[in-house]
Amino acid sequence: MITITDPRIESYLLGMAPDEDPHLVAMEEKALETGLPIVGPLVGRLLYLLTRLKQPALIVELGSGFGYSGYWFARALSLRGKVVMTDYSEDNMAYARQVLSESGLVERAEFRVGDALQAGREYENIDLLFIDIDKYQYVDAIEAMLPRLAKNALVVADNALWHGRVAEEGETDRETETVRRFNEYMFSHEEFFTTIVPLRDGVLVAYKF
Amino acid sequence: MITITDPRIESYLLGMAPDEDPHLVAMEEKALETGLPIVGPLVGRLLYLLTRLKQPALIVELGSGFGYSGYWFARALSLRGKVVMTDYSEDNMAYARQVLSESGLVERAEFRVGDALQAGREYENIDLLFIDIDKYQYVDAIEAMLPRLAKNALVVADNALWHGRVAEEGETDRETETVRRFNEYMFSHEEFFTTIVPLRDGVLVAYKF
Repeated sequence: MITITDPRIESYLLGMAPDEDPHLVAMEEKALETGLPIVGPLVGRLLYLLTRLKQPALIVELGSGFGYSGYWFARALSLRGKVVMTDYSEDNMAYARQVLSESGLVERAEFRVGDALQAGREYENIDLLFIDIDKYQYVDAIEAMLPRLAKNALVVADNALWHGRVAEEGETDRETETVRRFNEYMFSHEEFFTTIVPLRDGVLVAYKF
Repeated sequence: MITITDPRIESYLLGMAPDEDPHLVAMEEKALETGLPIVGPLVGRLLYLLTRLKQPALIVELGSGFGYSGYWFARALSLRGKVVMTDYSEDNMAYARQVLSESGLVERAEFRVGDALQAGREYENIDLLFIDIDKYQYVDAIEAMLPRLAKNALVVADNALWHGRVAEEGETDRETETVRRFNEYMFSHEEFFTTIVPLRDGVLVAYKF
């Protein structure tokens, strides 16, 4: 296990932009209390910035948890944009719907309970695809969704450095191997221009030509 | 001095996307031989991706060195876009012009020898401002250029973590203090949404509302 970014740098960055939005604060507390994973505020801010730049009409999230990343996306969307959240847990999707309702953003969101990949396959012309499902599904996810991406789409995948394990030869478990294969797929695919931002657990960002 | 990102992660990322462009390879070798600083391939790729997303008509670079970042920008621009490079060194600008000419991109570039801030002030409606001049000038630079930015402009500043010194209380030299003040200015300014990407020496990326 590798500490990707020096903890003093993470603290400095977190201190620069404290979350003042009560919905974000509540979701961050819920994550702490329940142990359910969220991308956290530093990655959340990156998602917001990318969405502002891209101005997508359609965002599809594969693996939304209880809606933390989806909330960042929804805040950054213009009125014509929509974010589709997917999660196997009915409770998670109900919570996400509640947060989006309370913040006046629910009309920009769709909530799908069930298998994320199955739901994702129902959409076309996706401008921004966010991948955060179980890591062993990452390669399946991009292969299934590639034909559903719009021209110049953005693909964003969380955990692309997988606790640093992708960079450690000794790590050969299924998740690590799949994330490695996913990264290699994205970097070598001629239709994508790919980078990985070493924020938190690594965020892959790829631009489709 | 803090190692911002674990060296094994940097190696992994560098290994994922080896530069195959002979102009980039030549410039990276020149940087090694001369000791002149360049942003390097990982930041270069980030600049390319941001430029593709933003599709700027006008990029202004404050502090271009011998043209490494400018070359990444020029490659990412569409035909209607232009990058203005600025450097005090005539040799640096002549070299940049030569590389851009050899690669067929010279029509997308302008080369200004002299004081970067003075040259930068001559432009308006800047869609992407890249700041990489002497660090003690960073606050002056953004204050001077703010009125010259287009709506929804992107501001990108290299060395925003300044060898990690911004996160170390004991560091109080002029450069570190100015980079800290610059970061605080950008994060607290209500017209900007700001993040710092901990690639190499830290890249500040801000979206102007």
